Amino acid sequence: MTRRTVFFLSDQTGVTAETLGRSLLTQFEDHDYEQVTLPFIDTEEKALAVVRQINELAATQGSRPIVFSTLVRDEIRECFRGVSGLFLDLFSAFVETLEREFEAPSIHAVGRTHGRRDSDSYERRIEAMNYALTNDDGMTTRDFGRAELILLGVSRTGKTPTCLYLALAYGVFAANYPLADDDLDSGRLPRQLEPYRRKLYGLTISPERLQQIRRERRPTGRYASAEQVRFELRASSNLFQRYDIPFLDVSESSIEEIASRILSITGIERRIRP
Amino acid sequence: MTRRTVFFLSDQTGVTAETLGRSLLTQFEDHDYEQVTLPFIDTEEKALAVVRQINELAATQGSRPIVFSTLVRDEIRECFRGVSGLFLDLFSAFVETLEREFEAPSIHAVGRTHGRRDSDSYERRIEAMNYALTNDDGMTTRDFGRAELILLGVSRTGKTPTCLYLALAYGVFAANYPLADDDLDSGRLPRQLEPYRRKLYGLTISPERLQQIRRERRPTGRYASAEQVRFELRASSNLFQRYDIPFLDVSESSIEEIASRILSITGIERRIRP
Repeated sequence: MTRRTVFFLSDQTGVTAETLGRSLLTQFEDHDYEQVTLPFIDTEEKALAVVRQINELAATQGSRPIVFSTLVRDEIRECFRGVSGLFLDLFSAFVETLEREFEAPSIHAVGRTHGRRDSDSYERRIEAMNYALTNDDGMTTRDFGRAELILLGVSRTGKTPTCLYLALAYGVFAANYPLADDDLDSGRLPRQLEPYRRKLYGLTISPERLQQIRRERRPTGRYASAEQVRFELRASSNLFQRYDIPFLDVSESSIEEIASRILSITGIERRIRP
Repeated sequence: MTRRTVFFLSDQTGVTAETLGRSLLTQFEDHDYEQVTLPFIDTEEKALAVVRQINELAATQGSRPIVFSTLVRDEIRECFRGVSGLFLDLFSAFVETLEREFEAPSIHAVGRTHGRRDSDSYERRIEAMNYALTNDDGMTTRDFGRAELILLGVSRTGKTPTCLYLALAYGVFAANYPLADDDLDSGRLPRQLEPYRRKLYGLTISPERLQQIRRERRPTGRYASAEQVRFELRASSNLFQRYDIPFLDVSESSIEEIASRILSITGIERRIRP
């Protein structure tokens, strides 16, 4: 296994460089990467310091560093000519193609992606986040009328992180409601959810995975017992089917996957882009 | 202004295609984009349906669609040959360069970026999110010992969204503590924060921006008054300076920027990559 240092360089937050760079690296096995994100490289002085850092590292390590860059300004990029690393310029190739397509030059300006350029979208995300926080875990259903989506599921199926991710990444108003023993025993949809049936979306998970997750939280007792977990999951699936509520098995899914699948299936708009 | 439809295609969540695609588009002005994300294109059948969708749109719109793709599998990508759009393959160019660098073929396998491949990192993010939720807004300081970072600031400076973003994107344990009138009047650091001085990081903002944000929440009363806002911000800045607490002005920053700057300055590890 080769040890490699990977740099993510940006004149902005580094999120784009990290995202594509990391995607690409997952296509290769058997490497052990040390990852270094260097954001806000917005002067030639900072750029030259980074060049020195990369060159010094290259001189001491056996393999040359890999550098993912979304640097936009020409004079900053110029500083990296001849750097002792594999320099992958994630911007240039596509920007030129797009310039031809649009028959217009690009701006080559910094800080347009994750800046607060669009104040509306900042407000929207914060509002959506506050909405998710106050409409979490069945604390209240009074404001469910404003929800675009209401997640339903037993404890520890990922309702809260999914709602918060939907808010922060996409500005979506998502509430959630935990199915408790009373609801599951009766086999009926909680009455306060009746008016919002078309917004409901169920989360389910395999009993093994749920037990594993719950055990980390409370190792002993009924909460993480095989019997209890099986009962809850069976009863919640029955409920989803009985009321024709679409649902998703999240056993193998990350938060991003759950969010993306639900948006894709429901057609809820991704207002804010990551 | 030309109206363009932009597609983000992926065999996975679409987050990477959206992130880089959107970055690139911000480099061009005067365009009005309709954005369509089509994730989980994992069969040839789905791919061909997408090709039809793009071709139909191209036939009816004046300008051809722009397609950002992170499709990984060759047989899926093949389906898009001759599609009526500008097809930008965000993967291929770099994957080939990396194959040469590593002297190894890539996996060409789907679903390795935002999947729950790495169960540890899933748990870590959820744990960090739960930590942020329970250590929010001064509800308790009992567990501040576990924090990697404690954000300090007056109401509406972005403490909660930054903590949640740090948790979900990077698995960082971040708590926050709101500076209230009592703290600001005394000019002293709240006693319960004393043991954690090295973890403190202040957020500040311009009075105009804070007034604007607060007015949206409570249009009338002292909370959003010019006088109150100026008092709080002056007093909190004095506090940061008096106790040598590093701080950041977030007036022009997005959540990603605040998070990225703080990680960059403090050197706190970005454990999980977006």
